[in-house]
Amino acid sequence: MDLSKLERPVFLVDKSKVLRNAERMSRKARESGVSLRPHFKTHQSADVAEWLKGLGVRKITVSSLEMTEYFNRSGWNDITIAVPVNIHQIPRIDALAGTVNLHVIIDSEYAAVRLKEGIARPLNVWIEIDTGDHRTGIPAERIDRILSLARLLGRAPALRFQGILTHDGHAYDAAGAPEILSIHEESLAALRSIKQALEAGGFSPCLVSMGDTPSCTLVDRFLPPISEIRPGNFVFYDLKQKSLGVCRDEDIAVGVACPAISKNVDRNELVIYGGSVHISRESLPLPSGRPFFGQIARLTADQGEWTAPLPGVYLSALSQEHGKVSGPEDFIRSVEIGDTLVVLSVHSCITASLFSEYQVLKDGVAGKFRP
Amino acid sequence: MDLSKLERPVFLVDKSKVLRNAERMSRKARESGVSLRPHFKTHQSADVAEWLKGLGVRKITVSSLEMTEYFNRSGWNDITIAVPVNIHQIPRIDALAGTVNLHVIIDSEYAAVRLKEGIARPLNVWIEIDTGDHRTGIPAERIDRILSLARLLGRAPALRFQGILTHDGHAYDAAGAPEILSIHEESLAALRSIKQALEAGGFSPCLVSMGDTPSCTLVDRFLPPISEIRPGNFVFYDLKQKSLGVCRDEDIAVGVACPAISKNVDRNELVIYGGSVHISRESLPLPSGRPFFGQIARLTADQGEWTAPLPGVYLSALSQEHGKVSGPEDFIRSVEIGDTLVVLSVHSCITASLFSEYQVLKDGVAGKFRP
Repeated sequence: MDLSKLERPVFLVDKSKVLRNAERMSRKARESGVSLRPHFKTHQSADVAEWLKGLGVRKITVSSLEMTEYFNRSGWNDITIAVPVNIHQIPRIDALAGTVNLHVIIDSEYAAVRLKEGIARPLNVWIEIDTGDHRTGIPAERIDRILSLARLLGRAPALRFQGILTHDGHAYDAAGAPEILSIHEESLAALRSIKQALEAGGFSPCLVSMGDTPSCTLVDRFLPPISEIRPGNFVFYDLKQKSLGVCRDEDIAVGVACPAISKNVDRNELVIYGGSVHISRESLPLPSGRPFFGQIARLTADQGEWTAPLPGVYLSALSQEHGKVSGPEDFIRSVEIGDTLVVLSVHSCITASLFSEYQVLKDGVAGKFRP
Repeated sequence: MDLSKLERPVFLVDKSKVLRNAERMSRKARESGVSLRPHFKTHQSADVAEWLKGLGVRKITVSSLEMTEYFNRSGWNDITIAVPVNIHQIPRIDALAGTVNLHVIIDSEYAAVRLKEGIARPLNVWIEIDTGDHRTGIPAERIDRILSLARLLGRAPALRFQGILTHDGHAYDAAGAPEILSIHEESLAALRSIKQALEAGGFSPCLVSMGDTPSCTLVDRFLPPISEIRPGNFVFYDLKQKSLGVCRDEDIAVGVACPAISKNVDRNELVIYGGSVHISRESLPLPSGRPFFGQIARLTADQGEWTAPLPGVYLSALSQEHGKVSGPEDFIRSVEIGDTLVVLSVHSCITASLFSEYQVLKDGVAGKFRP
């Protein structure tokens, strides 16, 4: 595929960067003696999954039953669905538990009772703990509720209580690396207490699963009581991670290549074919406080990689299929209608979810799950 | 489908509202003597398209070549692609022009020259005018450039200059109805001058295509020089249109039904299975300035419609697959895990684009284009 003459927006993956990012995380997990169970919602691609299998990954995390079925079809069979069980999917969960070593998470007695009634095949169950993200999970300080939920699970023959699981999503609101590390340490302390209480209550061993890309990238080593980590975004990274001090420009492994379709030198703007249905409306603030939706790079002449983001050039507005790029006059003048620009997006997981396949640089197409 | 027991988020369409919205627009266009060429990017559904065909619609607008091909397969053959021509698609445009009465838009000499060189079959071409949106289009005051572009098109035997076209996207930034109407009137005045200049220059008749949902909904009548209107969102409407004073709650014809999967009474919050990959991150500000991503309704007992949005209940946060709903304690207490909530989204076109099919209330599934 000639990336200099694009018919429509194309999602690019730089495989060498994905491998470098994944090797770094995989090595740290191995050296720390914890399992790496990466969240595959980031790429949702059986082909990208194979690259990770090459690094020894065997356990994975997903965010839906359909994604579980998709990855199971390509041979993955140790899968955690890291969204609280939807009680209306219990019959399908039970059917899947017959073929997959399936893990689910719960944060309510209500769902636990429904699982107890509806599950006949062995199913691994984790209790989700809220260590400060305040989205889902039982508040970490409610050790009484956590214990009572574990007892409820213990009375169901098919349900195998595995341990506790958390996602420190509030790390994404941190001001930078020091705050992310302190959030991580607070979570570790809370999980340590809960694990002790559960093990003292007879639920031993109580495994501990945690992990978001910011903290998993920034820590030097995964400390007890962690037994597994579930970062997702680290294979691709993005501008949000860069803004948190989690990755560098050269770690960002994906971009959306878009053709320029209109330019207006008087306003120092050009328009690409590539809008919110391709990039997503995830944004970061400029110094002025105005949002931007991406930075812009150009492909190298051999189309083997893209440049560093161009200084002062931003995706400044999005409509459904159009994206407006603002930048210095000399940059705008240097782009001709038809030229390819590469958008580095703010949240690569969401951008990736909008495409039905990926173009791997210097290689072919990578297939992808589509719900 | 029992909408009270959802396995996953489902995009709901209330056909009676779509028909009422479309009939109103269709009647006004007919009474004003202008063509209604609705923008089908809003629904991207051959089934919804049939409903509009029943009202007499024969000409349509789309936003990509792939969408053109999709609708052409179900019998539509007078189609405008309302995004400036991507020069790398010219060979496919030429092929399509053999089977479809195809209209394209341009805003540069560069693209016009490429069209002139690459198009052999008769192709209708419109010059896009920027009447204030400042996205694409030749600035309305540059009548010299518009005339020179029309002359360039006139020298290409296969290219049929049709007229001028604009999209007042800046109407979406207006404070309310009076400002939207004044934007519309300014555009009319600008287009009138350009039409006169073109017709005086021998390009007669010069058709005039315009239309965004806010102004097309709010005007009592479409005045000269308008010859066709291209609103899209009016079939569905959404919270953004409501916030502009363009529609009422009872006009909003679509919603995303999502099951509740977690609740936290202590924080007056619950979590639905339905995140930014289902709803999109389009937002509006609350009075406090914080963004929200949707309002919440409930299905009626017979599942034939949904209620008015519940007062004080908002989709207050989104992650990839989770949505957080905040509201008064009595509401949160009234929802049980597994219950269905209906999200009315901020921008229905984008939300619709995220689904592969729609569920029509009291009816079956409507098929949909997916790129």
